[in-house]
Amino acid sequence: MAAPVDLYFDFISPFAYFAWRNLAQLEREGRLSIDPKPILFGALLSYHGHLGPAEIPEKRIYTFKTVNRYAAKRKMQMNWPKSHPFNPLLALRLATKAVAGAQQALVINCIFEAIWAEGIEGASPEELSAALDKAGLNAKKLMEKAAQNEAKEELKQNFAEGLQAGAFGVPTMIAGEELFWGNDGIEDLLNYIDDKDPLDKEHVQEVLSRPRGIDRKR
Amino acid sequence: MAAPVDLYFDFISPFAYFAWRNLAQLEREGRLSIDPKPILFGALLSYHGHLGPAEIPEKRIYTFKTVNRYAAKRKMQMNWPKSHPFNPLLALRLATKAVAGAQQALVINCIFEAIWAEGIEGASPEELSAALDKAGLNAKKLMEKAAQNEAKEELKQNFAEGLQAGAFGVPTMIAGEELFWGNDGIEDLLNYIDDKDPLDKEHVQEVLSRPRGIDRKR
Repeated sequence: MAAPVDLYFDFISPFAYFAWRNLAQLEREGRLSIDPKPILFGALLSYHGHLGPAEIPEKRIYTFKTVNRYAAKRKMQMNWPKSHPFNPLLALRLATKAVAGAQQALVINCIFEAIWAEGIEGASPEELSAALDKAGLNAKKLMEKAAQNEAKEELKQNFAEGLQAGAFGVPTMIAGEELFWGNDGIEDLLNYIDDKDPLDKEHVQEVLSRPRGIDRKR
Repeated sequence: MAAPVDLYFDFISPFAYFAWRNLAQLEREGRLSIDPKPILFGALLSYHGHLGPAEIPEKRIYTFKTVNRYAAKRKMQMNWPKSHPFNPLLALRLATKAVAGAQQALVINCIFEAIWAEGIEGASPEELSAALDKAGLNAKKLMEKAAQNEAKEELKQNFAEGLQAGAFGVPTMIAGEELFWGNDGIEDLLNYIDDKDPLDKEHVQEVLSRPRGIDRKR
């Protein structure tokens, strides 16, 4: 039986794009079933007082290289959006259930590919519309719905749920009670789904309860 | 010929421990030659205004689990130090060339294993001494040297060099002009060393020069 997996993601993250492709493949193989939950990565960072990989100049360079190497090794078509970071809010709204309904996976896939394989401007209504139309989706109707309050409310709801589930980054996958983070968290997610998680829960609980020896001044 | 690799690390990081073990194995196989450069991870975070994995409660939990799973999959003996984060300064000083000299790799290995396999208190002079003595190293002499100014100066020098090389985290590996980050950066490091780096440098240079579309307020 396909294991249900909640996927919290933002189009701004290339690792969310890789995870989307990998999880979609696993869904086609019947190993899991994705419930996509678009959330605003920037708001998650602000909540935790954290910086994203694109916010530290040296880390940005390394991240761009890592992404390029990952795609090259797999011979994936890959580009980078025309500007990055970009404001992902419209794209995220388009990706909600309130807007996309039964076409949610198609809309998400279309937007991810347009941004990370074709390299459109991720914040542009015109370029997003063109990509949706090209994929045979009704861009005009989707855009109209994306302007309504329901889309905004769903993003807020996803954000609250994500925080509740312990999300600190994207992509975040939730299966049962367990959280997995990042494209490279999929291996551990699969072990968990297959009932082969090697986690020693008692030991981890015990070491997490040990004291902190030092903390930096904030 | 073994490729020279500068390794910037801090004992506070379990991923630096994993990288140390993996790189040491690659060194034994003659694929690379490590020049160990202990640096203070906390100072690196402060410099970049960043938070470490142990500084976001939800990320700390996930990191502990990820580390436990990584070790369990490889059937590694693994513990967590008695307190974490701990003040790594004494351990880092012991690991300098000024203190350890020709025994640098032995001292580093001893301290990493004591902290992450046996789970000692990483900041304790008594427990570090006991571990060094047990490994047949002269703890008394090493401790005396660690109290001298040369050790302090070497850590400062390593930190300045690390920043210069673009380090934003630990472990950081520098081979030639390229930086690799994290235990999971070793795969790309090896491709680079073997002259099989799939990086499209021109494309990365071009996408890095594209504009930023949005930035969060700080």
